[in-house]
Amino acid sequence: MSTLDLNCDMGEGFGAWTMGDDLALLDHVSSANIACGFHAGDPATMRRVVAAAVQRGVAVGAHPGLPDLVGFGRREMKVSPADAYAMTLYQAGALAAFARAAGGRLHHVKPHGALYNMAARDRALADALAQAVHDLDPSLVFYGLAGSAMVDAARARGLRVAEEVFADRAYEDDGRLAARGTPGAMIENADAALAQVRLMLQGQVRARSGALVALRADTLCLHGDQPGALHFAQTLRAALATDGVTVRAP
Amino acid sequence: MSTLDLNCDMGEGFGAWTMGDDLALLDHVSSANIACGFHAGDPATMRRVVAAAVQRGVAVGAHPGLPDLVGFGRREMKVSPADAYAMTLYQAGALAAFARAAGGRLHHVKPHGALYNMAARDRALADALAQAVHDLDPSLVFYGLAGSAMVDAARARGLRVAEEVFADRAYEDDGRLAARGTPGAMIENADAALAQVRLMLQGQVRARSGALVALRADTLCLHGDQPGALHFAQTLRAALATDGVTVRAP
Amino acid sequence: MSTLDLNCDMGEGFGAWTMGDDLALLDHVSSANIACGFHAGDPATMRRVVAAAVQRGVAVGAHPGLPDLVGFGRREMKVSPADAYAMTLYQAGALAAFARAAGGRLHHVKPHGALYNMAARDRALADALAQAVHDLDPSLVFYGLAGSAMVDAARARGLRVAEEVFADRAYEDDGRLAARGTPGAMIENADAALAQVRLMLQGQVRARSGALVALRADTLCLHGDQPGALHFAQTLRAALATDGVTVRAP
Amino acid sequence: MSTLDLNCDMGEGFGAWTMGDDLALLDHVSSANIACGFHAGDPATMRRVVAAAVQRGVAVGAHPGLPDLVGFGRREMKVSPADAYAMTLYQAGALAAFARAAGGRLHHVKPHGALYNMAARDRALADALAQAVHDLDPSLVFYGLAGSAMVDAARARGLRVAEEVFADRAYEDDGRLAARGTPGAMIENADAALAQVRLMLQGQVRARSGALVALRADTLCLHGDQPGALHFAQTLRAALATDGVTVRAP
Repeated sequence: MSTLDLNCDMGEGFGAWTMGDDLALLDHVSSANIACGFHAGDPATMRRVVAAAVQRGVAVGAHPGLPDLVGFGRREMKVSPADAYAMTLYQAGALAAFARAAGGRLHHVKPHGALYNMAARDRALADALAQAVHDLDPSLVFYGLAGSAMVDAARARGLRVAEEVFADRAYEDDGRLAARGTPGAMIENADAALAQVRLMLQGQVRARSGALVALRADTLCLHGDQPGALHFAQTLRAALATDGVTVRAP
Repeated sequence: MSTLDLNCDMGEGFGAWTMGDDLALLDHVSSANIACGFHAGDPATMRRVVAAAVQRGVAVGAHPGLPDLVGFGRREMKVSPADAYAMTLYQAGALAAFARAAGGRLHHVKPHGALYNMAARDRALADALAQAVHDLDPSLVFYGLAGSAMVDAARARGLRVAEEVFADRAYEDDGRLAARGTPGAMIENADAALAQVRLMLQGQVRARSGALVALRADTLCLHGDQPGALHFAQTLRAALATDGVTVRAP
Repeated sequence: MSTLDLNCDMGEGFGAWTMGDDLALLDHVSSANIACGFHAGDPATMRRVVAAAVQRGVAVGAHPGLPDLVGFGRREMKVSPADAYAMTLYQAGALAAFARAAGGRLHHVKPHGALYNMAARDRALADALAQAVHDLDPSLVFYGLAGSAMVDAARARGLRVAEEVFADRAYEDDGRLAARGTPGAMIENADAALAQVRLMLQGQVRARSGALVALRADTLCLHGDQPGALHFAQTLRAALATDGVTVRAP
Repeated sequence: MSTLDLNCDMGEGFGAWTMGDDLALLDHVSSANIACGFHAGDPATMRRVVAAAVQRGVAVGAHPGLPDLVGFGRREMKVSPADAYAMTLYQAGALAAFARAAGGRLHHVKPHGALYNMAARDRALADALAQAVHDLDPSLVFYGLAGSAMVDAARARGLRVAEEVFADRAYEDDGRLAARGTPGAMIENADAALAQVRLMLQGQVRARSGALVALRADTLCLHGDQPGALHFAQTLRAALATDGVTVRAP
């Protein structure tokens, strides 16, 4: 009865360099966010990963980032909303072309790294990103941090939204992610992570303070570049199957 | 009765750097080939130039190049057909997104610089480019050097083709462009250039040797970055109007 | 008796794109800050501009920036001090090689754009930049905003420092530059700019509030990319000659 | 009595991406060719690898490549000798700065990938590279393919030269490397590779045809990115020790 989307960032190699085991993870997720060349990814890699996702019936998403290869798109940059609009449209448009060429179609857009973090809290930036997604194709799904400015901005444009949650990150009382570096911010125990997902499926999360906080969970992010990622994905899929939760893209 | 397309390469600035007077030239051409970020162009520039073209009813084309900003895409690189396919699909897809966002649509693709020159003579590369254009959208028009491997490859995929000719370049007996640097390769006199265009409209060109050579001319390339470009464009438009030639995109 | 250095940012073209009239300005300045490839500049441009500076006896400086060609190094990025150290050492080392090859030597380093602005107020970043300059060559001169964290950091490492002032920017009571956009922040009148320079040579500046503020002025920045730059440089040189001020690099 | 240099390409990660196990290999070689940012390598990586090499007493070399990150510098580009000069000087200068900052000094320069291959056969390009190395510092050692245009060009400028040979590549009768893809071009058997090195130490190599060919061997290239690289390095060091061959940089 209940459903959950499992998404994973992919295609984050660049030229001769690889990152993560994309093909192995594709068997465990329902949607893939594929790097578009600005923080990672190059045309040949995009083509290959998009084709593999289409082949497996995994929903193809664009994963646009800041123009910062050396920093992997993780360093915040003061980009104007106009620049953010243009870089998002550019990257999502390029990824959409590979989806079409592979016989599929672009399904969603999820910003990457610092662009994601900035748009989660900066409404002007969030508006720019949502507008770019809308202008490319108003039927696309916008994946953004649950409860953030991003999902508000996307809804304001009539876009379908998938609110994203994390199994391995702790939350604060206001529903925000606990900042990396704060005590208990990372949930490294697989059982605890699984318990958090089960609570999320009921629309809640237990914050670092112990309080129960409301949180909508449409899509769960799996981190493909972390040790144990594949094993956790398998465990999670099995648990969700037991619970009668259907895994599929929104 | 007779028609000719006038095309011009545009959007070839990059960030803070400008090149050519795009907006002035847009009033004189029927189609624009807009740089896509690899040899020139950046998302904000693409957005601006595409929007201006759509607004004026000028056909919007992608102008994909080699990944060589420093060399402006003019240095030949040994790229594999697979890499050429992917870089063309990527760039054309990105440009198509800006066309859609501006309320228009992508009309054609014309390769740039060294990519154009290599694909004019290398059929495997030409096949890769034509396939990328086809896979993005089989209704797109492929702009390629008249009589070259590119137009053959595009036709073999069922794409509509616009054979491109030059008013300011001399031709050889085999219908190829005279190499830059050979005596008489550049036609700098505006009257001579105009005379060449008139002959081209009859399907011919007078080669360097003096021989009359058959040449199909669907689209004429205006070079926006050269002194006198704007003046020649105006003179040419006036002459074509006098001759009863309609200027419009294929 | 009194001396002043006139510096100008140069070599800020990139590949086929040009910016400013470097060669004309070289005749009017005593030191040149030459872009090093991250925000602008490419190896061939660096070679040409460095050689021209050496030939005219103008002091050769490195002008390292953030890795952001599209943004011309003007967008702030959250780079760590370690990354800032490495990018400064890299760029200054590259520029030093061109100075040596031209028969000269690297004389100074002046950070560019957002890197300059961030290091002016962030001591940890300033320390990283100063350390990079010191580790390359402790006899180099560090050019930094007068009264800023940068000049403190450089002095703390025993580097020679040139405190930089601006003729066309207004100052606040605390000796800082008035932010662009505040009323009166830009001094567009050449006479007012000249008057400001004359006061600076006495170690003072009249702030926006009207107050007289102490300010050390070792080097004055001329903006080569602004209209009237060349004319102002000529006027300034003439006025300094009249006043008996020697123009030379520290 | 006899000596041989063992060199290895290193520092070929980029930002978040890694390649090879540099630190492990540093214990087995006498000289390191460190990527300089054009085909691989970024300032932070260069800093780290250079410091590790200096610490272990391994000779620090610059490993400049073509400006082609996506292609890892392996795709030939038609760069002019002037551009090749400038890109070599730029990259070697940057690397030299890290060597100096680490308390060492730049010892040699070895071109990378397609730049190496092109300069091995194109004397004009080889002259440009050799001139760049000479203009940076005439005491540097030029590492180039044994018997190629590169070593001729370097010697013509009075540079010290290290002629480079390969244990895992077959040779032709004219002393050139057998092209990858020809039968027997790669020597995958460790014993055969070891035998080839021993013959090289006597100034000879057995060509694919079976003929004995004269070949000078100053430095042997170990490929760090291949499986078994570390094991072969250990085996080779042991064999050279047994034979009384001293491993050291020229």
